[in-house]
Amino acid sequence: MNVSSMLNTHPEKLTIDMRVVAECVSACFECSFTCNSCADACLDEESPQELIQCIRLNMDCSDICAATGRVIGRLTHPHLTVVSMQLQACVKACQACAHECEKHAHHHEHCRICADACQRCEQACQSLLETLALNA
Amino acid sequence: MNVSSMLNTHPEKLTIDMRVVAECVSACFECSFTCNSCADACLDEESPQELIQCIRLNMDCSDICAATGRVIGRLTHPHLTVVSMQLQACVKACQACAHECEKHAHHHEHCRICADACQRCEQACQSLLETLALNA
Amino acid sequence: MNVSSMLNTHPEKLTIDMRVVAECVSACFECSFTCNSCADACLDEESPQELIQCIRLNMDCSDICAATGRVIGRLTHPHLTVVSMQLQACVKACQACAHECEKHAHHHEHCRICADACQRCEQACQSLLETLALNA
Amino acid sequence: MNVSSMLNTHPEKLTIDMRVVAECVSACFECSFTCNSCADACLDEESPQELIQCIRLNMDCSDICAATGRVIGRLTHPHLTVVSMQLQACVKACQACAHECEKHAHHHEHCRICADACQRCEQACQSLLETLALNA
Repeated sequence: MNVSSMLNTHPEKLTIDMRVVAECVSACFECSFTCNSCADACLDEESPQELIQCIRLNMDCSDICAATGRVIGRLTHPHLTVVSMQLQACVKACQACAHECEKHAHHHEHCRICADACQRCEQACQSLLETLALNA
Repeated sequence: MNVSSMLNTHPEKLTIDMRVVAECVSACFECSFTCNSCADACLDEESPQELIQCIRLNMDCSDICAATGRVIGRLTHPHLTVVSMQLQACVKACQACAHECEKHAHHHEHCRICADACQRCEQACQSLLETLALNA
Repeated sequence: MNVSSMLNTHPEKLTIDMRVVAECVSACFECSFTCNSCADACLDEESPQELIQCIRLNMDCSDICAATGRVIGRLTHPHLTVVSMQLQACVKACQACAHECEKHAHHHEHCRICADACQRCEQACQSLLETLALNA
Repeated sequence: MNVSSMLNTHPEKLTIDMRVVAECVSACFECSFTCNSCADACLDEESPQELIQCIRLNMDCSDICAATGRVIGRLTHPHLTVVSMQLQACVKACQACAHECEKHAHHHEHCRICADACQRCEQACQSLLETLALNA
């Protein structure tokens, strides 16, 4: 996804580092896809009962990342408190989902990839939160 | 929407007051619909330029309420930190959107109704946060 | 959800019966919630393996109904082909999910309620499709 | 987004060409992001009134692509009729949005990029529909 080239066409010229915004948007959409597919892959494993907590967190994290990616992907008059709180909620969802997926990473490659996507997204949200705080 | 009757069929029997959960789920879905339709109605008004901030917050609030309603509507092994953080993000989005919609409530009935839906959702999320804290 | 009162505030005065639109929006949001919660309830049952097809269809139907409800809830310059195709996709998703949920309705009350929500949504989408065809 | 490596970890081994599935999922998520950001960029232009039809189609296309990407990203027991109908709805949404965005592509670079993303997504959905028909 060429997120940067799209965001750079926006008429609003924000003063923050757009590379941090683009990385966060990209990581949110990737994590939303990966969690959605990890829930579905877990469901199809031989013992889905052992993966119920993982499926549940996958579904939550997928929904929360999707909403966060859409909010961050809008640059028109962003409301800093709303944006920051949603980023913080996304950080927690990614942390929890990564923690759970890591438990199954040795048995299920989809959980290993999903834990990576959650960690990338968590870090991208943290970086954007720091960037927003410096510019506030 | 008969949210209570659906949630009461869930095999997991939680110890918290399910009426508070049901009211929160119902308010999140209603607010997501109302904000989505308010953004669209604002766009069709004669002077959409005056409503840009409102449209922006409507879209954010609609996405955040949709994700929150889906997360709260799941009762299987809820992750308290994830749930609580998303509820807090939803409170902020509803507060910001209600505040903006109220400015236009005298001219646009859709903004008046939307401000009401946001306030109902904010209160429902606050009540659920209090209930979760008491049971933690 | 008071969908009618919100839709009636829209500046665009469409010539179609707004009660049919409101019932469709309301049914889509209710079905999206119900399918999301049914997937989660199925996951928590003693034998989730028997419900994998049901969980899969619940998740698809929840996503498709959510998108359809958002599209139908917008009244500004609707694109008839886009709206009609999405309504037809929603009809198929609701039929498939209702059919699957009915198989488990005797054992799981959430599947019985979910089948009802899918049938209500299917009929509401069909009614709106007929109304749109008459006005085209 | 490394969609292929994630989809290839799924326990269900489908007989269809997974590169076609991966391209479709990737294009749906990219188009959903791009349309969401194009609506927001249009809203911030000097004359948003001239872009109302574009904003409206952007929002519909973003929602429809998001739902389609989630459905296609699930490989567990896919329901062919549901999947195919949603792909067809996505084709129509992408065609309509690309057509509208092209009208503004000379004035607004975000509309040019968005038209490209819609065309890529339309073609990816068409390719998957053809692949599914050959395997049915």
